[in-house]
Amino acid sequence: MGNCFFSQDKNTNVRVSLPAVCFVWEIAMVVLFGIFVRYNEEADAHWGEYKKTHNITTDMENDFYYRYPSFQDVHVMIFVGFGFLMTFLKRYSFGAVGFTFLIAAFGLQWALLMQGWFHSLDYSTGKILIGIENLINADFCCGGVLIAFGALLGKVSPVQMMVVSLFGVTLYAVEEYIILNLLHCRDAGGSMVIHTFGGYYGLAISWILYRPNLNKSKHLNGSVYHSDLFAMIGTLFLWLFWPSFNSAIANHGDGQHRAAINTYISLAASVVTAVAISSMTEKRGRLDMVHIQNATLAGGVAMGASAEFMISPYGSLIVGFFCGIISTFGFKFVSPFLEKHLKLQDTCGIHNLHAVPGMLGGFISAIVAAMASESVYSKEGLIATLGTQGGYQAAGTCVAMVFGIVGGAIVGLILKLPIWGDPADDNCFDDEVYWEVRMSLHHQMVVWSFN
Amino acid sequence: MGNCFFSQDKNTNVRVSLPAVCFVWEIAMVVLFGIFVRYNEEADAHWGEYKKTHNITTDMENDFYYRYPSFQDVHVMIFVGFGFLMTFLKRYSFGAVGFTFLIAAFGLQWALLMQGWFHSLDYSTGKILIGIENLINADFCCGGVLIAFGALLGKVSPVQMMVVSLFGVTLYAVEEYIILNLLHCRDAGGSMVIHTFGGYYGLAISWILYRPNLNKSKHLNGSVYHSDLFAMIGTLFLWLFWPSFNSAIANHGDGQHRAAINTYISLAASVVTAVAISSMTEKRGRLDMVHIQNATLAGGVAMGASAEFMISPYGSLIVGFFCGIISTFGFKFVSPFLEKHLKLQDTCGIHNLHAVPGMLGGFISAIVAAMASESVYSKEGLIATLGTQGGYQAAGTCVAMVFGIVGGAIVGLILKLPIWGDPADDNCFDDEVYWEVRMSLHHQMVVWSFN
Amino acid sequence: MGNCFFSQDKNTNVRVSLPAVCFVWEIAMVVLFGIFVRYNEEADAHWGEYKKTHNITTDMENDFYYRYPSFQDVHVMIFVGFGFLMTFLKRYSFGAVGFTFLIAAFGLQWALLMQGWFHSLDYSTGKILIGIENLINADFCCGGVLIAFGALLGKVSPVQMMVVSLFGVTLYAVEEYIILNLLHCRDAGGSMVIHTFGGYYGLAISWILYRPNLNKSKHLNGSVYHSDLFAMIGTLFLWLFWPSFNSAIANHGDGQHRAAINTYISLAASVVTAVAISSMTEKRGRLDMVHIQNATLAGGVAMGASAEFMISPYGSLIVGFFCGIISTFGFKFVSPFLEKHLKLQDTCGIHNLHAVPGMLGGFISAIVAAMASESVYSKEGLIATLGTQGGYQAAGTCVAMVFGIVGGAIVGLILKLPIWGDPADDNCFDDEVYWEVRMSLHHQMVVWSFN
Repeated sequence: MGNCFFSQDKNTNVRVSLPAVCFVWEIAMVVLFGIFVRYNEEADAHWGEYKKTHNITTDMENDFYYRYPSFQDVHVMIFVGFGFLMTFLKRYSFGAVGFTFLIAAFGLQWALLMQGWFHSLDYSTGKILIGIENLINADFCCGGVLIAFGALLGKVSPVQMMVVSLFGVTLYAVEEYIILNLLHCRDAGGSMVIHTFGGYYGLAISWILYRPNLNKSKHLNGSVYHSDLFAMIGTLFLWLFWPSFNSAIANHGDGQHRAAINTYISLAASVVTAVAISSMTEKRGRLDMVHIQNATLAGGVAMGASAEFMISPYGSLIVGFFCGIISTFGFKFVSPFLEKHLKLQDTCGIHNLHAVPGMLGGFISAIVAAMASESVYSKEGLIATLGTQGGYQAAGTCVAMVFGIVGGAIVGLILKLPIWGDPADDNCFDDEVYWEVRMSLHHQMVVWSFN
Repeated sequence: MGNCFFSQDKNTNVRVSLPAVCFVWEIAMVVLFGIFVRYNEEADAHWGEYKKTHNITTDMENDFYYRYPSFQDVHVMIFVGFGFLMTFLKRYSFGAVGFTFLIAAFGLQWALLMQGWFHSLDYSTGKILIGIENLINADFCCGGVLIAFGALLGKVSPVQMMVVSLFGVTLYAVEEYIILNLLHCRDAGGSMVIHTFGGYYGLAISWILYRPNLNKSKHLNGSVYHSDLFAMIGTLFLWLFWPSFNSAIANHGDGQHRAAINTYISLAASVVTAVAISSMTEKRGRLDMVHIQNATLAGGVAMGASAEFMISPYGSLIVGFFCGIISTFGFKFVSPFLEKHLKLQDTCGIHNLHAVPGMLGGFISAIVAAMASESVYSKEGLIATLGTQGGYQAAGTCVAMVFGIVGGAIVGLILKLPIWGDPADDNCFDDEVYWEVRMSLHHQMVVWSFN
Repeated sequence: MGNCFFSQDKNTNVRVSLPAVCFVWEIAMVVLFGIFVRYNEEADAHWGEYKKTHNITTDMENDFYYRYPSFQDVHVMIFVGFGFLMTFLKRYSFGAVGFTFLIAAFGLQWALLMQGWFHSLDYSTGKILIGIENLINADFCCGGVLIAFGALLGKVSPVQMMVVSLFGVTLYAVEEYIILNLLHCRDAGGSMVIHTFGGYYGLAISWILYRPNLNKSKHLNGSVYHSDLFAMIGTLFLWLFWPSFNSAIANHGDGQHRAAINTYISLAASVVTAVAISSMTEKRGRLDMVHIQNATLAGGVAMGASAEFMISPYGSLIVGFFCGIISTFGFKFVSPFLEKHLKLQDTCGIHNLHAVPGMLGGFISAIVAAMASESVYSKEGLIATLGTQGGYQAAGTCVAMVFGIVGGAIVGLILKLPIWGDPADDNCFDDEVYWEVRMSLHHQMVVWSFN
């Protein structure tokens, strides 16, 4: 056996291209880090002096202690959360978890640089000074790229994904700068900059890479019992640590505290309504694992931009309530529609979990910000939470969409070049293309039983 | 195939009842949160003002930073720990992890309200003011309900579990108020309020719902190799984060520090003695996964009420030593006895992991509290740890048992109404009743080989 | 079936020996803890008084809050990380995760004592005073023993592993004392004391226990699809929490901050180069799960001794870059060579992941320490990071190797006594020897199909 897998006209051999891309880009990282990246004052050995000159009395005031626990939770979400969520496909779990590992490990290095140039450059020395907040932001940036991976899962080569990461991180850093620094938006949990951008970026690429004969791989585009369970590991760690995600770079004190509470509440509501709609739309009220794995998270996505705001606990509940419903309907009805009529093949349904809830989250935050008053926030709290200028939350959301769609379309065209080793249509969703797979006894028996 | 699963007289269609219950209860949550729930002073945007008026110099004094890392660990225990621990059944893993998700996501909302009315009500405004400690307590409360789910696993419908949650959370909040506020007990890790209550609540319900013909589903009431491994994910996250569980709401400083140390030590001892007894009671000394998955945790349960006390490291070791033994014997000999002679069907053996170790933990804490002296604790430490009045630890344990047994019996009778869509006796422990299950190739072959 | 498994001359019945060892050692722990172990001043109820006498104004200064989040991450690495990483074998996953549980739970108790005598003894009272840092160090010590387990996986009995743990922890405490206290080395993440020692300790034992006929169990010495996925759970939690591992006992403030950043960066580089080499050395550029599961971690191992140093971000990147390459080559070429020509059977390839990268990490730290200057560190920072005397980093690395090799050889000889219940050569890598295994339907079919 095995021969049948490689009889197409497409060449999926990446033995030259994958190592080449990895080495070239990693060596570039070493050089650029050498030129540009240093520790910031809180991570540098001069911290002892810094404390004295800035009248800081305790190491506990080092930002590390404010953010490290949240950072680690975010870190788990990116690698375990995204990675395992995508293991639901019956024969693409290595690709899901392994390529997530590669994409994010490369992406975070490039993100440290790109985001560093925009946000952490010390103009006197020309160095990027990094600390714990840079690590969180680099992880966030990888989150955006991994959302895009969700739309492409099973249909692209690892080399293509390295290209998607390189451009994705670059685009992300630019749109983030425009949204946060030029439009002065607040987006602590990234409804706009992560989910809206990442969602539309992935959808645009997938739309360009449309495969009319993808149904040749239909038998592998689905889950089995155990793969659905592995995916639940991803779902749960995403769901559980989302309060950390939305509060990780929020303001010290009440900002982080409130962001965590709002997200916790919103997510809880999503679960209940996602279950309700899932049961309502299936035969005999049976639940669909796809909905439980995905739509339960919509409340966290949508709360991203408003997490720090005084949206109040019931406001969070309402956001989660509706997003759980909208997302589940999306999986049930919108995705099949998009695939059939718009030629949009979205393996993980990121349209329903990231693009739409992210966009909604951006617009919700515009409304909440518009309603903010000094009596609710206190004078000081209003400035701390919303800034002195007020952000253009709705405009920011649109910027994220435009960057995603236009950037994705261009990257999609680049990926159409016939040099990237992507699989043929009857070869998608199959780990054997890019992985040495040891067959289980059971699989051997199945193969044997067909011969 | 498939037909054979639904040929019983029982109707397991929950297409109307499950969405209805979810929506009615979630809408009630929105309304009640709107009326009652607000942020407390540490999560509110007025925190900046609060700091000034209370002479707090740093955001680090916000309770968020004392408790958030522990909160996240507890959160993982509730959803990943409980959820995956129950995936051990070969064909009920979706139900284990999925219904845990639903129960706890609904339960924590209702718990924020119920516990809020008892513990966090601002009498001047009639509002419940929530912060990080409320989130932890809400998770704790869901822990109690999920323990009860362990006894019922595979034999009830999701609608029934929503009922169990609604009443369970309500009963929990009341018994917690009596034990902590009226009897002035100390129970940081919930030996009484969580484990004793949750254990007897589940056992009482299961006793009322006794199924004389449950052996019709016997072939599904067991594990396979991979399901036992999934369960170990649950076991390990419970075991690892138990120090956080028992220290999450302990006093700042030495209280949290000591609670974590005591729990860490007690759990380590449980593992060694559980292994010893498991090996001793099996053929050729082979270990039984059931014991490793469960009895290893008994030291954490039993340490719940005493974790904050000066029980001393060797005291913790002794508690873990004996509870590991008692719990393993329970799984080996007591559960079969209870099922045969007391008509008590306890799917996960919560009697041995929660009810008995929890009760023991309550009584141990009574002894340790009675032995407390000013020389061991210091005057200040004695008041901080045990309060000024001294708690009635033994009485508190009994209150938890009574609430569990009486409350569980009543809820059990409610669940006997023929409207909840529960499965027939030959249909238990089977995910295909409430889930859209995609069969694996292997499963298809098995089915096919029998035709 | 089943009979065929036990027809060898070796007796694998551990029904007497395993419980006996567990009970004797656990009772010894209770007695020794009773005599020696008490809470330190930060975990004792006298903390309130201590704060006053030491002019500490806030509970936040309790070391618990500096280290607890890192401790929990390390805890997850030891039990979930090591445990699941070793589940890759198709029929030894119970042993991987279950024996890890047993070894570490026993080992940490003995480590609290051994390390306590060397590092935390209050000479006025003769008591060991423990706090959160002791728990972290105990977990570290278990890490060393579990590395050794990786070489022995599937070839030893649980009783033998208890012996390996007892001696391993003892040797660890002594070498740690020599390296850290006598040679004044810096080794926050344990490149020397954990990885070099643990690696060579395991390799020496395995070399002594060489099994010339191990190929009789060859059919079980490999992975299947799902077991590789379970192993990725271990890999990812190790990889994600390694910044916590290397920063857990680093200096407060910039020390912990810098250690986390360096490790994060080094690990990212390892992933990219490990993927590159894996693809380059396999047919058609396909990736090998063994490399992804293991070599991606090499950057964390090698960064252990230098994590706290001002190695600078690009320095970390370079370390990860080369260690990812070296480790992957090790798995591909060195391990088969060692097995064939040096009679070294190393189930998990710890030579490539721990022994070599650990040793390299030790020598790298010697170079980085030699290059340290007051201008880079500041006067105060230099003393805080490197100590007043300067450590003999290279000498420390050699001490760790010698302790590992000599200690391992002696322990290996002890394990050759025919009393420990180890499996026969055709019985290795099989859970059915030491576990009650419930066969899956699929497995039953396979067995049935051969009859």
